[in-house]
Amino acid sequence: VRAAMAGWARAVRGLLLDVSGVLYDSGADGGVPIAGSAEAVRRIKASGLKLRFCTNETQATRENFVKKLRGMGFDISVSEVTAPAPAACHILRERGLRPHLLVHDDLVPEFAEVDKTNPNCVVLGDAAENFTYANLNEAFRVLIGMEKPVLISLGRGRYYKETDGLKLDVGAYMKALEYACDVQAEVVGKPSKRFFESALAEMGIPPEQAIMIGDDIVNDVGGAQRCGMRALQVRTGKYRPSDENHPDVKPDAYVNNLAEAVDIILQQL
Amino acid sequence: VRAAMAGWARAVRGLLLDVSGVLYDSGADGGVPIAGSAEAVRRIKASGLKLRFCTNETQATRENFVKKLRGMGFDISVSEVTAPAPAACHILRERGLRPHLLVHDDLVPEFAEVDKTNPNCVVLGDAAENFTYANLNEAFRVLIGMEKPVLISLGRGRYYKETDGLKLDVGAYMKALEYACDVQAEVVGKPSKRFFESALAEMGIPPEQAIMIGDDIVNDVGGAQRCGMRALQVRTGKYRPSDENHPDVKPDAYVNNLAEAVDIILQQL
Repeated sequence: VRAAMAGWARAVRGLLLDVSGVLYDSGADGGVPIAGSAEAVRRIKASGLKLRFCTNETQATRENFVKKLRGMGFDISVSEVTAPAPAACHILRERGLRPHLLVHDDLVPEFAEVDKTNPNCVVLGDAAENFTYANLNEAFRVLIGMEKPVLISLGRGRYYKETDGLKLDVGAYMKALEYACDVQAEVVGKPSKRFFESALAEMGIPPEQAIMIGDDIVNDVGGAQRCGMRALQVRTGKYRPSDENHPDVKPDAYVNNLAEAVDIILQQL
Repeated sequence: VRAAMAGWARAVRGLLLDVSGVLYDSGADGGVPIAGSAEAVRRIKASGLKLRFCTNETQATRENFVKKLRGMGFDISVSEVTAPAPAACHILRERGLRPHLLVHDDLVPEFAEVDKTNPNCVVLGDAAENFTYANLNEAFRVLIGMEKPVLISLGRGRYYKETDGLKLDVGAYMKALEYACDVQAEVVGKPSKRFFESALAEMGIPPEQAIMIGDDIVNDVGGAQRCGMRALQVRTGKYRPSDENHPDVKPDAYVNNLAEAVDIILQQL
């Protein structure tokens, strides 16, 4: 790994970290931190590298999400988090869209300022327990009733790992609605290029000086690489050995976990 | 319409009828017959034409399905029905597959004779209220845990109309699982060629002597045409005016409903 990263890691000025599966494993119990990750975040901050948390988390407002992570010992604040819901709100306002929301109850406050009367689009997040038969049919009916259905999906993840096992992610439900309505969703969040670019803009560095570290081969690694960044895949979270044979995406290096990634990167500086 | 059908309708020796949306509109209340359809079925039988009910219905055993239709005044018996569940059972036995079922409670008895221990495939039907978040995650975990996931889907419909509105059909959930597991489902039922061919074999006629009558532009009309049959689309059930601009499929003729179709066909004989 060190050899693979020699050279290019020296130019790095900032890190983008995925959160779920990199800092902690999520779960109904709130989740558990991944060993060494809290210390790794502190070391990044002490090093002077710029840092941005780049998450597709849509089960909570950023405020509550950050609160949970701070409770686990992570040094993180709301202003350091790039997340899909605020990005979606920006798009909704820009285009005069009024959403029907199929999202987690705890995400709804992020849309407090948005006009939701007489919907002309559907916004889909990781609604978890809100992915009921009735709610899916309702979102479907709103979409199919539009002359030109507009479906905005907060991420396109296939699944994620919680402490009690793998769960279908928003991307699976996005595909269901896409197929039923013969429409293509607009994805806000990773792996959308626009989303990574806004995280880079917030850090004020170009892609070639940034490294993305994530557990998702497609959404973290593939998405970041398409933006011109280097990307590492950690072997924690949803990582599966078969990811290493992915037909399209190859990380710039594998690391066992965030702590190891930070060790190697800081040694190169 | 009559002009469009002149000529080829004369060669017809048998009709395949879709059921939901052609004979009746389904719904939580059991559904309501479509005006003129019961009489149309009687006229087909009196004419000497062969008749087969070719349905993707998977919310009930054939026995209960037929019982419901008889209660609405239709002359129909179990032996006249081609349906996905029995076809799937045949495939499961043929290939030594043991299913994890995600289907409607009322369909389970169709799989009574099938070994369901230690599943090595998932069979997906229109599970309706059983399409819960928990059940979808469970089916997903069974699939993703297989070395080579096998997903068998009873149909691939996008949606259907019940008396209280449009509902997502099995195809939408099939797409969700296909995407999450990066696998392609094997479809049993319309529009699979094998399914139409078995219905034709049961009637003992070649495709060029058969007409399919359905409300689904893709699964009824497109599927039957790919088997070499003519196909009519009725303007009842899930029919929508935009179907008439479908990019790939064009029915041999449109009819307002089954009664009109039968009128025209019998006049040509």
